[in-house]
Amino acid sequence: MTPQSEDFSAWFNELVLKAELVDRGPVRGTMVIRPYGYRIWELLQSDLDRRIKETGHQNAYFPLLIPQSYLQREAEHVEGFAPELAVVTHAGGKVLEEPLIVRPTSETVIGEYMAKWISSYRDLPLLLNQWANVVRWELRPRLLLRTTEFLWQEGHTAHADQADAMRETMLALEEIYARTVRELAAMPVVEGEKTPSERFAGAVRTFTIEGMMRDGRALQAGTSHYMGTNFARAAAIQYTGEDGRLTHAHTTSWGLSTRLIGGVIMTHGDDKGLVLPPRVAPYQVVIVPIGRGDQGAEVIAAAAALAQRLADSGIRAHVDDRPQLSPGFKFNDWELRGVPIRLELGPRDLAAGTAVMARRLGEGKEPISLDSAPARLADELEAFQDFLFERATAFRDSHTVTTDEWDDFTKAVAVGWARALHCGTPECEEEIKAATGATARCIPLDGEPESGPCILCGRPSAYGKRVIFGRAY
Amino acid sequence: MTPQSEDFSAWFNELVLKAELVDRGPVRGTMVIRPYGYRIWELLQSDLDRRIKETGHQNAYFPLLIPQSYLQREAEHVEGFAPELAVVTHAGGKVLEEPLIVRPTSETVIGEYMAKWISSYRDLPLLLNQWANVVRWELRPRLLLRTTEFLWQEGHTAHADQADAMRETMLALEEIYARTVRELAAMPVVEGEKTPSERFAGAVRTFTIEGMMRDGRALQAGTSHYMGTNFARAAAIQYTGEDGRLTHAHTTSWGLSTRLIGGVIMTHGDDKGLVLPPRVAPYQVVIVPIGRGDQGAEVIAAAAALAQRLADSGIRAHVDDRPQLSPGFKFNDWELRGVPIRLELGPRDLAAGTAVMARRLGEGKEPISLDSAPARLADELEAFQDFLFERATAFRDSHTVTTDEWDDFTKAVAVGWARALHCGTPECEEEIKAATGATARCIPLDGEPESGPCILCGRPSAYGKRVIFGRAY
Repeated sequence: MTPQSEDFSAWFNELVLKAELVDRGPVRGTMVIRPYGYRIWELLQSDLDRRIKETGHQNAYFPLLIPQSYLQREAEHVEGFAPELAVVTHAGGKVLEEPLIVRPTSETVIGEYMAKWISSYRDLPLLLNQWANVVRWELRPRLLLRTTEFLWQEGHTAHADQADAMRETMLALEEIYARTVRELAAMPVVEGEKTPSERFAGAVRTFTIEGMMRDGRALQAGTSHYMGTNFARAAAIQYTGEDGRLTHAHTTSWGLSTRLIGGVIMTHGDDKGLVLPPRVAPYQVVIVPIGRGDQGAEVIAAAAALAQRLADSGIRAHVDDRPQLSPGFKFNDWELRGVPIRLELGPRDLAAGTAVMARRLGEGKEPISLDSAPARLADELEAFQDFLFERATAFRDSHTVTTDEWDDFTKAVAVGWARALHCGTPECEEEIKAATGATARCIPLDGEPESGPCILCGRPSAYGKRVIFGRAY
Repeated sequence: MTPQSEDFSAWFNELVLKAELVDRGPVRGTMVIRPYGYRIWELLQSDLDRRIKETGHQNAYFPLLIPQSYLQREAEHVEGFAPELAVVTHAGGKVLEEPLIVRPTSETVIGEYMAKWISSYRDLPLLLNQWANVVRWELRPRLLLRTTEFLWQEGHTAHADQADAMRETMLALEEIYARTVRELAAMPVVEGEKTPSERFAGAVRTFTIEGMMRDGRALQAGTSHYMGTNFARAAAIQYTGEDGRLTHAHTTSWGLSTRLIGGVIMTHGDDKGLVLPPRVAPYQVVIVPIGRGDQGAEVIAAAAALAQRLADSGIRAHVDDRPQLSPGFKFNDWELRGVPIRLELGPRDLAAGTAVMARRLGEGKEPISLDSAPARLADELEAFQDFLFERATAFRDSHTVTTDEWDDFTKAVAVGWARALHCGTPECEEEIKAATGATARCIPLDGEPESGPCILCGRPSAYGKRVIFGRAY
């Protein structure tokens, strides 16, 4: 496999195929999510779904095909999405009277129903979420990161006023997204607000969680939007208040997609392959039985019994009993596929009541007792999860430079992030991008108050704090 | 609401909207699945998904948009689906070189990847499942039953030979579908094989589970298909056997969709509204607090505490504390929405340490002790689940007639099912349909060996057993 240091993109593309996470789809830019990749998505999904429900949201499902006229209701929205749309013009053997858009996102169709379902202030807030596929025709598709079709959840909520809608926007960002991504994906994401030129098409404010990949680039891992009354006006989402006045609702939307799987790979992976955080690893422990003939059969039975004990204690364990493959091949295979812990079990280990443990990171192997394996491995997995988060945090911090000098800035964004003051004009952001390839990733929520001259143009800085710049996926 | 006896279709259409299960979509034939309806789907889904995984299948995800040429590979398949296809002709602002089909089902695209992933007999069986949306342009759409877009799971598997593929076909039918539908949806479905004219387009054998609705019509609630080597030949799904010979795999597919929600409604519902089997009820118990002012607040707090105790013991409980609505309104509302058990809690009940329990079916109310409520309600819910299954079984049996007389046959299929001998020719099936509206629903797996003259044409019977005929959704 191509090493990361030689060509990070090539490393990624080769790895996601070799590790059997995905395959290229038949149509340019599409992908097949294979069982190993889909299982990672299911693990992320079930944690997100739990948090979404615990915070009072309900799942629903809205149609895939949206009348073209719906999309045109919000001017900025249609302008932003028009170049990416896939259009159904024929159905049931006939030309359709009105073309249908394959949803790129569902604000417009969900807005239509919010308008229908909401009449009184008692109907608010309306807190909906949808798990769905969406289609955006990408010019430069990348497996898992920017695919023509992807899977995601999209939250859509309506509120009585700005304060409640902003609370929701931040709840989705901080309590749902940042937590799942940190705690499961072990990605130390920065929470922040997008600059105006990076906002979602139709949003008043867009918030993001940004992670740093091992090539120093940023990945936007989830976004949360406060729409003001833009979509409420476009779809007539109104309610009668306690005072009897008819008022437009304030809406939000927030989405997190299968691209997060790409984020996991690029945050933790190395030249040997994937490195999966235990909480999103389809198999947390793989047991490789060693030995042939009668002894081999005995070892396989013992491995199966151990896997069952691990499963009973909540550990996802798998026995690799493929007879045609050598232990060495299997070791490499599971290293490539990022399994956190491998156990080797041979006749002599079995006789000694032990197995040989090898962690995905770090050198050396050590014997562990079979009796206490469930408790020991639970500890090891937790330590591995924590270690990955800490390692990624240290990497991010050592690749982030706070600077007021343009030369340092350009050096910083070539290999990581720069924290700099900026004037806030889209033109200046555009110049920075043209010169360095870097864009404004976000204005971090936890940034210290600071002001001064813009890193490029020298005009007074905006936002009252530093902006993170970096090249991005 | 229109009574069932007056117009069953009108009853159904009014009910699914009033109970807030679904709404009509913006495009003809599409639907919005509202939170209350989607929750029923999630409960069915989680049981199905568990069974699918426990029987060794893995989830994956394949693209929505399928090149038109793929669909044309299997002649019968394309002939069957051609009239129902939705076609994307434009994307990214350009006319596509090859039109893309919005998947009506995924045999063709999954076949393409099976061919790629399978090379040796060691790769078999390949057991995949996908949760997805599909689009079929329907001439006569019906909410939940026949919608242009619906949600489903589609299992797709490849096997070394016919015997293994047939085992899989029956496993999906009996161990996955029939069990979930009987145990959760409380529908006493009949398992059987479809006659040749009712087979899936491209299948060698199609099996079905058929339920009887309360208007006597049949609903096909899930199907499982043995494809022989039809799709393997179309997509070149081949493997090298232990003997070194290159051989075509035998494939299966099986699907169960959101139409099952419609089946639940039409199997159990009555003139007051939905009647939900507890295992698929979003709320199994609804508590209606009664009282105003300080006493009201005390009652609401007690209701919330009770709901929490019920939740802790695994019962889905909900407190209806909407202040603007009267208890009487709430009673009707939850009856309409099919909640199995309602608890009324007022200040006097609270003082007595009781709540008043009303079941969704049956007359009268009775006090139950708050202390023992979790255990008591768990028993009540189990009894209610069993009662619904038994009631539906009795209804089906009393509306099924075994007959060799054409007059009795026509009377039977006007209000239910007829078990009759049939010659097995598609032309004769077509004549029966033209004369009575009834189609061959299935040849039941558990039918006794029997033969004799065809119910319509008098020629010798086929299949060696009776066929169930009925009008169907």
